[in-house]
Amino acid sequence: MSMDMYAATVPVFDRMLANMQTWIRTARDHAIAKGFDESVYLTLRLAPDMLPLPRQVQIASDAAKSGAARLAGIEVPSWPDTEASLEELLQRIQKTRDFLKTVSAEQINGSETRAVSVPRRDKEPLQFQGQDFARFFNLPNFYFHATTLYALLRHAGVPLGKMDFLGQPK
Amino acid sequence: MSMDMYAATVPVFDRMLANMQTWIRTARDHAIAKGFDESVYLTLRLAPDMLPLPRQVQIASDAAKSGAARLAGIEVPSWPDTEASLEELLQRIQKTRDFLKTVSAEQINGSETRAVSVPRRDKEPLQFQGQDFARFFNLPNFYFHATTLYALLRHAGVPLGKMDFLGQPK
Repeated sequence: MSMDMYAATVPVFDRMLANMQTWIRTARDHAIAKGFDESVYLTLRLAPDMLPLPRQVQIASDAAKSGAARLAGIEVPSWPDTEASLEELLQRIQKTRDFLKTVSAEQINGSETRAVSVPRRDKEPLQFQGQDFARFFNLPNFYFHATTLYALLRHAGVPLGKMDFLGQPK
Repeated sequence: MSMDMYAATVPVFDRMLANMQTWIRTARDHAIAKGFDESVYLTLRLAPDMLPLPRQVQIASDAAKSGAARLAGIEVPSWPDTEASLEELLQRIQKTRDFLKTVSAEQINGSETRAVSVPRRDKEPLQFQGQDFARFFNLPNFYFHATTLYALLRHAGVPLGKMDFLGQPK
């Protein structure tokens, strides 16, 4: 057994995406218990110039699907960012998890030195070798948006704790 | 070249710790520019039942040093959590980076199946194999506290952006 590019990425995304589904379901229950409209969650931002909650979910989804696809050397699926409810955000996460199931370890393993190009708006693309893309760009970016979702929900009073962030240890 | 346990952990910690130093220095400059006492940063929390800013830095430090030490099979250095200023938090981060330099790739590589035990207060220790410890517990925990530090500073108006979170691509 050795750490490989697949083990370091796809199962990590899948587990955290499953945790994110749990946080959103907990947020929904919290809104019901407190008697407020769950749609207020969709407006939350940590700062006026940070992105609101739905974008945190969408970008975490993008990081997971684009990370897996770029390392596998296949086309990144393009999905519109149209989710406008917690239920639709849950479905977006599930769609991401379903896509990850279609990418095999065989496609991703050996991608340490694969050339990965990340397009940027109005700038030259970022160029990486696969290993540095995964460890210095894609995983930190994924964790950034997952943690920001968690932070927004905690800031809004949703009863979550560290073990909900990590998921239950197997 | 192949992804290995060292490559997936120690350089990742070191890079994000260096980024954290940059965020804290930017926060210090922001306090000077705005004319407020930088010590107010030390009281920031995202929620009343979340830990304040200094603990986010200390726990990120702990995650990095304990992650490296546990995977290497060496004793985890124990440091008191006494930092009471931004300067002392910067030093704590530097001390962590200095410790990471003492742990070699040879000590950590091959730790995928090494038994790792994580003590908990009032509960049985968590037991992992090294690979699952790194990818499902230690790295997510490290990113949680690093991102929460970033979130606290952004929430407080410190001028930071995503590229400060990721660090400049090499």
